[in-house]
Order: sequence, then C-alpha cells, then structure tokens
Amino acid sequence: MGKTLNLNIKRLRTQYLSGEMTPSKLVETLNVLIKQQDDHHIWIRRLSLEEMLVFANNLEDIDPASLPLYGIPFAIKDNIDLAGIPTTAGCPDYAYVPEKSATVVQKLIDAGAIPVGKTNLDQFATGLVGTRSPYGACKNSINPEFISGGSSSGSAVAVALGMASFSLGTDTAGSGRVPAAFNNLVGHKPTCGLVSTSGVVPACRTLDCVSIFANDAADAATVLDVAQGYDIEDSYSRKALPAKTIPKDFKFGVPQASQLEFFGNEETRQLFDDAVRRIESIGGQKVIIDFAPFREVARLLYEGPWVAERYASIQSFIETKAESLLPVTKQIISGASRFNAADTFKALYRLNELRRLNEHVWDDIDVLVTPTAGTIYSVMEVESDPVKTNSNLGYYTNFMNLLDLSAVAIPAGFQSNQLPFGVTIAAPAFSDQALLDLGGRLHASLNP
Amino acid sequence: MGKTLNLNIKRLRTQYLSGEMTPSKLVETLNVLIKQQDDHHIWIRRLSLEEMLVFANNLEDIDPASLPLYGIPFAIKDNIDLAGIPTTAGCPDYAYVPEKSATVVQKLIDAGAIPVGKTNLDQFATGLVGTRSPYGACKNSINPEFISGGSSSGSAVAVALGMASFSLGTDTAGSGRVPAAFNNLVGHKPTCGLVSTSGVVPACRTLDCVSIFANDAADAATVLDVAQGYDIEDSYSRKALPAKTIPKDFKFGVPQASQLEFFGNEETRQLFDDAVRRIESIGGQKVIIDFAPFREVARLLYEGPWVAERYASIQSFIETKAESLLPVTKQIISGASRFNAADTFKALYRLNELRRLNEHVWDDIDVLVTPTAGTIYSVMEVESDPVKTNSNLGYYTNFMNLLDLSAVAIPAGFQSNQLPFGVTIAAPAFSDQALLDLGGRLHASLNP
Repeated sequence: MGKTLNLNIKRLRTQYLSGEMTPSKLVETLNVLIKQQDDHHIWIRRLSLEEMLVFANNLEDIDPASLPLYGIPFAIKDNIDLAGIPTTAGCPDYAYVPEKSATVVQKLIDAGAIPVGKTNLDQFATGLVGTRSPYGACKNSINPEFISGGSSSGSAVAVALGMASFSLGTDTAGSGRVPAAFNNLVGHKPTCGLVSTSGVVPACRTLDCVSIFANDAADAATVLDVAQGYDIEDSYSRKALPAKTIPKDFKFGVPQASQLEFFGNEETRQLFDDAVRRIESIGGQKVIIDFAPFREVARLLYEGPWVAERYASIQSFIETKAESLLPVTKQIISGASRFNAADTFKALYRLNELRRLNEHVWDDIDVLVTPTAGTIYSVMEVESDPVKTNSNLGYYTNFMNLLDLSAVAIPAGFQSNQLPFGVTIAAPAFSDQALLDLGGRLHASLNP
Repeated sequence: MGKTLNLNIKRLRTQYLSGEMTPSKLVETLNVLIKQQDDHHIWIRRLSLEEMLVFANNLEDIDPASLPLYGIPFAIKDNIDLAGIPTTAGCPDYAYVPEKSATVVQKLIDAGAIPVGKTNLDQFATGLVGTRSPYGACKNSINPEFISGGSSSGSAVAVALGMASFSLGTDTAGSGRVPAAFNNLVGHKPTCGLVSTSGVVPACRTLDCVSIFANDAADAATVLDVAQGYDIEDSYSRKALPAKTIPKDFKFGVPQASQLEFFGNEETRQLFDDAVRRIESIGGQKVIIDFAPFREVARLLYEGPWVAERYASIQSFIETKAESLLPVTKQIISGASRFNAADTFKALYRLNELRRLNEHVWDDIDVLVTPTAGTIYSVMEVESDPVKTNSNLGYYTNFMNLLDLSAVAIPAGFQSNQLPFGVTIAAPAFSDQALLDLGGRLHASLNP
C-alpha cells in the first residue's frame, strides 16, 4: 500500500477506537513500507518487525481511548536515545547502546506511541543541509536531486514519505525547521526547556531543544502535549510559565524588504508575499520591523564561541578519534579552539544586550513571520559550496534559541519545480500552543 | 564633634523635618571629620567642602519631607561613577572622569542624598581583604592592626567611623558582606539585577551587584527602596519579581557542624552558636542542612573560568599596561588565560546542575544562616599569606551570586579583643525586603 497509508494521528485514532485498526496490524503494514530500499538515506537503524511488535503487542489489551498516542508510529533522530538501540549521532565510531530511552521518548512510548527507527542526521547535528552523514546524504522527499535539509534530515523525510505519523528532531540553530520547510511539513521548535533533553546527545547544551515534525499543526500539538514537561534530571528543563496567547487581530512582524533574503530565488520571494497576504486574510495586521537585531544575534551564534559547546559535548571523543568525524564536521567543531574564556563571556554580554534590545520588538508585534529558508539547494549545489549554502539556510533560523523564542515552521506552497516553501512564525518563550493554533489556521488557508 | 555625630537616617530626618539641622550645616560639620588625617586609608578622593555644598545648597529650598534621603551623606566605592570625579577602581593609571553618575548614584542624589567621597577598595574589586590597594591597606575601624575586609573596604570603614550614613559597595563574591562583618555593620547584598550596575566598573558582569552598608537594617532598607529599579541601560538589570516573604515561624538552615569553618577561632564559633540561639529566640526553627552543594558552587567560582570576566572587563588596559596592576591582582586576573571557551561552557553546565540541586534546599528552609566570615585576620597575617587568608574569608560568601540569592550580613557580637563578628542570612532572589526585616529583628536581639 506504500504511500497511500494515511498516518494522520486523529484519523488513526478514529480507526483504533472503532476497532478497524490494531497496533500490530498497523506495524505489519508499515513494516513493508519502511523496509523498502532506503534510496533517500532516511534511516540509520530501522526497527525490525519483531522489535516494533513488542511495542504494538503491549497495547493490544489496552483501551485506545486511555492513551493519547495509542498505536501512533514515530521516528527518532539518531541523537536521541531509544533503549537497547544504538545512538550514533551520525558517527559510527561514536555509537553507544543506551540502557534507557530519552525522557521524551519514554513519555511518548508511555502514551502509546510506537518507535519505528532511528533516523539519519547531519553528523553531531552540525549542519542545516542533510548531506553531512556517513550514512549517505539524505534526499528530499519530493525531488531526490535536492537536499532534505538538516540536521534532522531523516526524521523529516520519514514523516513526509508516510513512514511515521510524526518524528522527533533536535533544533539548536534551525535543524527542526529547515527540513520541515523542504519536505512540506509542520516543524515545531518548542520553547527551550519545555521538552526534556535528557538522553539527547548535546550539540550546544545551552541552546538545544527537541523538535517535532508532523503533517499538520494539530498533530504536532497532540505530540507536544505528551512530550513536554519539567524534568528534574535535565538541568536546562524549565517549569512552564503560563502559556502566552496571541490575540485574534494579531500583529505580525515582517522584515523590511531590503532585509529579506531569497538568495536569487524569485519564486520563493513570491511565495513569501503570498503567505503574508494569507496571514492578513486570517486576521493578521502586518508590521514592517527592523530585522537587524535578529541578524546580529544570528551572526553571534555563527561567528561566536557557541561552537565550543559542540566541542565540549564530544571533547574526549574528538581528542582521541578526530579522524572518525567527517572532514567538514571536524573542521567546524575544531573552530572552538579560536575562543578563550574571556571571548566567551564577552559574547554572552553582547547576547544579553541584544536580548534586551530585542524585547522591545515584542511591544509592537505578537508574532514574527519570516521564510523558514530563503531558498533550497540541490545536493550538487551543496557539495560544490558546503559552507556558504549551509550558512544561507540559517539566515532566518539561527537567532531563535539565543533569543528564547518558540517557533513553528508551516508549509506555504510550492515552487513551479514542485519543491515546497515554508514560513516560520515565532513568538517569545511559552507561546508554543498559541503558535501551533495560528500555524494550523495558516496552513489551512493554503487550501481553503 | 567627630565620632559623636549620629548619622542614623531616621534620626537625621527628624532633625531636618524639625529644622534643627540643614544640609549645609551637616556638610560643614561632617567635613571636619572627613578631612582628618586618613590613617585608615578610607578615601581615594574626598569631596571638598565646596563640592559637598553644591549638593547641600540644592536642597535648601526643598521640603525635607518630599525627599526620602534628604540631606543624607553617603560614600561611594571608587569603582562606581560619580559625575566629574575620577573613578580609579583602585588603580591610578586606570582612572577616568565620568561625565555621568552611575544610575544608582544618580537615583540617590535625586532622592536628596549627598555624596562625600570615593572610597578605597581592593584593586578592581578583586579581593576580600582590603589590603590590596596602592592607596594603602584599609584598616579596621575598631582595631587598625586588623584588616577592614574587602573589596569594599573604605565604604565600610567610612560608615563605621561615622563619616557617612550609608555607603555603596559592590559584591561579586563577598565584597559587600565581609567588610560589614569586620566593621560591625549591616551589609546588604541585593538580588543581582535589582540595583542597576550602569556606571560601575565590572568585575564579573554576570555576577556583580551594588551593595549597601548601613548602621542598621532599617537604614539599609530605606536606601534600597531608592536605589533599586529596572534600568533599561543595564542589560543585567531585572524587573523585580513579587517580593518573597519569610514566615513568622521561619525555618533556618545551618551547615552541619563538620562543615562549619572558623579557621581555628574558638570565639567566633561560640559567637555563631549564640547567634543561632538568638535566631531561635525570635521564632526561627533550626534545620541542619548539607552545606556541600553551596561549597561546590563556591569552589566553582574560585577555581573556574569566571576570573576571565575580570580579564574581559579590563582587557585592553591589562594588555597594554599590565605593570599598572598590583602584582597580586595581575597574577589573579591573568589566571584567566588558563580557561578556553569549552571549559567555560562546561563550568556553566556544572553551575546549572548545582543550581538545580540547590533549589531543593529551599523546600526545607526559608533562610540560610552562616557566619559572614569564619574569622578575621590582622594586616600582618594577610601579608604573610595573602592567597590563603583571602580564600578563607570567602568560605561562606562565594556561592551567593552564582546561586542567585539575596543576603544580609548582620552584626552578631564581639570577640574578647573587641573585634566584631557577623552572620549572614540569605534566601532566594527577591527576598531582599524580607531579609532586611528579619535582619533588623536579629540585630535588635543582640541588645534586647
């Protein structure tokens, strides 16, 4: 049945509640699809039918109504632990077999979700392209000549190709949003600390968060509801503040025309203008804002000492087995040595100043709206200029966690070559539910 | 009239309201005392009579009732700007003349307070001893053979010797508390960010705060009321959260006996036991706590990368004029080069974990009670072992700002040699007013 399997959470739930579907039946059907030739390089480790059936069988005697994710299949980025299955972070020599699942994975399993496999990623979650993996460059779900986006590449493509209802990614600088845009998915980057990162290989611990890919915003909200929660074992976990709301006649900020970058792509510029008009049509009031302070934060991340967090997180490994890393990954992470402690504190001061400046933006707007990525590249384009293309993809994403924002990437139409385009809506921390609600309305406005 | 001048804020205010005193009369009287031979090395720059009279004369036509600090004289640590007067930070070659007063100084002047001079300090606020100054080792107000404590040495001694009603210090690792203990004063270390640090020479910008020395807790509270407030120009300023309260039958934590350090001083041990009994007598319930997590945070500050903040704050100066620093100060601040960016982030991670652990302490107690310093040293003792003695003085103070606590140092009796002893009460951020209330009751219990 392949791609025809509809894994929408609400729909699957209806089928479970009616008895039309059972977890083991779903797993058996899904297994055929998942076990096809992996031309897209989605997977690092697929679960065997027997492994999936263990989870499915555990559910058979349980009332589907009692578990919010009863029998819902999901994929896991391979820097997030699933008990008993190796975690590689995209680096075979780094692999270890965790005894315990990551807190978020365990929560999802406890709520009835069924893991189907560990997905490919840019090595050590370092990259926005999806090509930086010894397991093969992950291919775009719509046109395999193009990149999937990264670093949560396989997680996005698994959902896009109907092999999972949702998936977990991680998002430090855009890794949960860029692949959503390139595969026509919703990508939710929660408020940092809202979803536990216990059992996740750190990239930048002060900035990491676990992200959610889903076919629509309602599915992402259902997953978030289970995934979130304070975790005493994660010192960066935060007790949720009262959820922020977005008014009906919300004001949305759009960068000045001169600050919008589409990297020469006129079609995506047009698609962004269309999206802005649709946001107005659902009640938003456009406010042109100065995007410069956001860009300065983005540059601070890109050019500043935070790369040393990536080094710190794998320090003993990289010091003994540097040759195990991809050359590009090694080059980036080794850049940490440029920065000393004084540089680090000075960057933290500057960030604090920019955060302060940025607070005022939210006096004028409720939501920030930007392209998720200005354009998309073919695998060949990335190979011929890996650093510049990667950097371009982060133009609208790098500042998000440094500024403690929550964000949702939403599909926003297609270029004439059928490749998708997406926009990201963002708001201060703990706006997650409000952004998912608004994102759902925006997504629906695409196909009214 | 010398030492007989009573500068208690409430008392002075009564005299102003009745017309018995005027600002210029006070300044003229005070000037005689301030201009005596400075055997204690209190001052780096005293204001001339004419300079003080400018402030006093500005007040003459104003209703004393309209200004909360009308005609109240105060001293300013010389790392805090007073417009038109050099700021040295204890290093003559570093001096600059600020055009603008520090935000906190301006607030106090606007409320009627009169600056009387800039006070001596451990150079660049680096030290807890009070001896590390090219302007002379600041002497204890009670026995000049002994240290004043530092780094806010002159500010404490100026108040102790009746030359100011209150004074401003700074407190990064204990500099506003140790000198209070050694000069029988109240020393309030506010919640970080509650009082603006705009116009203050940074020591560790992520940890600095402006502190208040006063003769009693009520005076400190009156000053805090004026001094505090969100400052948009200080990116580390914080909007005050609702003030925390301390219940009448409060629980107070005291370290296990084996974790209490008096460095061989049996009298201070006895004085601490007495203080604990007095706290019980005013309604407190003693809870023995594990002090180890606090000590680990203290060690993290002492041994970790935060010294690079001191380097960063004077980087261009130290890189060109290292010989301008005292050898001990240069040695300490140059220690920054031991730490790289990865070390820094790893220390921040560890701090975050320790903060998380520390949160649970406050489930069991409302207030932490410790000695402010375990013992006091003579100037000669410090000179013969400057690093160890300094380190001992921070045993109970170093962790405070890293853990985001507020604290008040309170006088707690005298040793047989007449040197004073003090205790510090501490509680989570924004407990300032509650701690000052409790501190006032504790102080009063000394002389019931």
